[in-house]
Amino acid sequence: MRAVDIIRKKRDAAELISEEIQFLIHGATDGSIPDYQLAAFLMAVVWRGMTTAELIALTDAMLHSGQVLDFSALRGSRVDKHSTGGVGDKTSLVIAPVVAAAGLDVPLGRKRVFVPMISGRGLGHTGGTLDKLESISGFNVNLSLPAFRSVLEKAGCALMGQTPEIAPADKKLYALRDVTATVESPYLICASIMSKKLAEGIDALVLDVKTGDGAFMKKQDDAEYLAELMVDTGKRMGKKIVALITGMDQPLGRKVGNALEVDECLDVLHGGGPPDLRELCDELAAWMFVLGDRVANLDEGRALAAEMIASGRARDTFREIIRMQGGDPEVVDDPGRLPRAKNLAKVKSPRAGFVASVRCEQIGIAGMILGGGREKQEDVIDPAVGLVIERKVGEPVEAGATLCTVHYNSAARLADAMDLLTKSFTVGDAPPEPALLVRKVIGT
Amino acid sequence: MRAVDIIRKKRDAAELISEEIQFLIHGATDGSIPDYQLAAFLMAVVWRGMTTAELIALTDAMLHSGQVLDFSALRGSRVDKHSTGGVGDKTSLVIAPVVAAAGLDVPLGRKRVFVPMISGRGLGHTGGTLDKLESISGFNVNLSLPAFRSVLEKAGCALMGQTPEIAPADKKLYALRDVTATVESPYLICASIMSKKLAEGIDALVLDVKTGDGAFMKKQDDAEYLAELMVDTGKRMGKKIVALITGMDQPLGRKVGNALEVDECLDVLHGGGPPDLRELCDELAAWMFVLGDRVANLDEGRALAAEMIASGRARDTFREIIRMQGGDPEVVDDPGRLPRAKNLAKVKSPRAGFVASVRCEQIGIAGMILGGGREKQEDVIDPAVGLVIERKVGEPVEAGATLCTVHYNSAARLADAMDLLTKSFTVGDAPPEPALLVRKVIGT
Repeated sequence: MRAVDIIRKKRDAAELISEEIQFLIHGATDGSIPDYQLAAFLMAVVWRGMTTAELIALTDAMLHSGQVLDFSALRGSRVDKHSTGGVGDKTSLVIAPVVAAAGLDVPLGRKRVFVPMISGRGLGHTGGTLDKLESISGFNVNLSLPAFRSVLEKAGCALMGQTPEIAPADKKLYALRDVTATVESPYLICASIMSKKLAEGIDALVLDVKTGDGAFMKKQDDAEYLAELMVDTGKRMGKKIVALITGMDQPLGRKVGNALEVDECLDVLHGGGPPDLRELCDELAAWMFVLGDRVANLDEGRALAAEMIASGRARDTFREIIRMQGGDPEVVDDPGRLPRAKNLAKVKSPRAGFVASVRCEQIGIAGMILGGGREKQEDVIDPAVGLVIERKVGEPVEAGATLCTVHYNSAARLADAMDLLTKSFTVGDAPPEPALLVRKVIGT
Repeated sequence: MRAVDIIRKKRDAAELISEEIQFLIHGATDGSIPDYQLAAFLMAVVWRGMTTAELIALTDAMLHSGQVLDFSALRGSRVDKHSTGGVGDKTSLVIAPVVAAAGLDVPLGRKRVFVPMISGRGLGHTGGTLDKLESISGFNVNLSLPAFRSVLEKAGCALMGQTPEIAPADKKLYALRDVTATVESPYLICASIMSKKLAEGIDALVLDVKTGDGAFMKKQDDAEYLAELMVDTGKRMGKKIVALITGMDQPLGRKVGNALEVDECLDVLHGGGPPDLRELCDELAAWMFVLGDRVANLDEGRALAAEMIASGRARDTFREIIRMQGGDPEVVDDPGRLPRAKNLAKVKSPRAGFVASVRCEQIGIAGMILGGGREKQEDVIDPAVGLVIERKVGEPVEAGATLCTVHYNSAARLADAMDLLTKSFTVGDAPPEPALLVRKVIGT
């Protein structure tokens, strides 16, 4: 078998057989196929797409390029959530402890749900769970696999970054896609996400596929297409899976920035927090309970999620996870211990009216410029900086009132961020039609 | 400027500006852009094609990636011929001396035509001029540029291989295309051929674009499309240029193999040789005379070509070129001095009738298998082996008569070649409609 013949076949829109895809992925993993052949193949996939059989073969080959975790000894089901990424998208920090907290008092015939969550870092205008967790002093996301297993077993949830053992082919291909303009293929995105998530040894997966200006998929059709691919792939690989198509036309919640987002999640775990963030966390947690056989239906799931927050048990679980992963557990009850930026600046409304729209991606980029995100993978981030959206879309505002508060440490970075933020808000005479947060559920 | 942004732009079918294409080609030449980005770009070009402006910019950047020869001091015009390659396609060895021989007695107001011919080697089922020349004992195709200039000046023609100074970007991209299934793009083929040919410092170019089973472009439409691209590119770059679309449904002439093809060219230079080879050599040489201002029209060009052969002047010029390039000049009058295979085998006709068709590419592959060509660039060839087509398409044959004589040195290789050759001839009841050799002329 020769790589060039496989590339040619894909280029000419013929269907590859499993063995051909395995040959490529083995070669990518062990380095026997050079990067230039992989790059040509990736561009051919962007061009020609993939059939269902090809996509399953690709996902499976990438999944098995490394270690597939086996948590089958845990008494319960293993369920994770994955989001395609957005601005202020911080649900993992709420959902993981909420779902893990429901591990006690499991009714007969129902299952405890374990959450083995392997997350990523922020890149571009979107944030990442690992960066947010690291704004908690001492929190270690670089667990060994035995340590990860141990936290998961005791707390019901563990959170860490991708290790070299997990889907190494994805690591290789992802780096290559980034520099060859081959990121934006739903097939490659699907195989990348699903191979990593299925390597967690899960039984079920809840996907949060974002759509709108602040999302990777600006158009809802594209988001739905990707969601359908992932749901189909997951089902064919024997997993329970559902995808929620959710709006990302403005930041989720009010806070954007690593420590600021942890702070907002703590608000939610304390029973407060912004309604949109609470709604989405409840929906996603409810679906995890459903797919994990913890409850019989979605309403029961929602009630259970609400109970975990109201009872303080989710908060207790989060405190326990932080403690077990080396972080400062007191942050849960004293968010003042989180890093805080030295200075504040305000973006003011030029007129009275209602916030008609925001340019969500630009707000994310402003957060990155402040130092809260990465333009390139090697950039170092500042956990304290970010912004607070004081007026969300539809909310009334007086002339001169603050639309957004900027938390910054570098005056040089502030100027560029302020410039972007000032242009990001549109104030109109009347509030726009309210948009649904959860637009569609795929896979039920 | 970043390579990834240029790749993305081409991927999304936007038109690149010259500076972007120059950036890529400079980076390919000096190694600052990694192969994987070039590979992704090449596949995106196969996908999206190129606009006229992009193709000109690409050809120009590749042309100027190295040295552009300057023969403007020579008193006359500089004209070359390029063939896209086929089986038994040996016209260069006839045309070069024919055109160069017409350098004496140039009428007032007309120009002497110099032929600075930089050629390639055979690959796959097609042969290469350099390999054929090297079957002449001592012939040196690796001239220094000053030596090339000296032979060209004195003999009116010089023949050599591509040097590292000539279009290094093409050398780099060509090697990469070969292993990334990005060879078959008319835009990339056009830029590759035209950049190398224009680097010869020529004023005019005659293209022989082959079509048919033994050609790179099996379909005439594809051949015409490529021819139009090359003619358009050449014209926009200030060159006189014409392309002949010619048939490659069977080998040109009767002989296939390096020494065998030199032998057949000597037949033509001595006034004999097969009619199809003679016809094509006359047509191509006539066009070179026309574009080089040696004659007023095509008929004059044909007459001049015929005169150069009939008078023996082309033969004399060939002898002189061989001598100046270190080869054995006596081979011209004594072809018995060429290498000769030790054994002969015969492919016989299973029935009486007429040769209805041949599988031309398979005949080329049989020649390669015998040792006369290369599967990979590093393969060493045997100049003596090859085959003689005893019955061309349309010719009558008796049952048991020889269709093809095989000249071989290795019995192990013979078996595979015989197998292919036996399947390559179809004998029918009646001769097929005769096919035109020159199908179309583009660029007049």
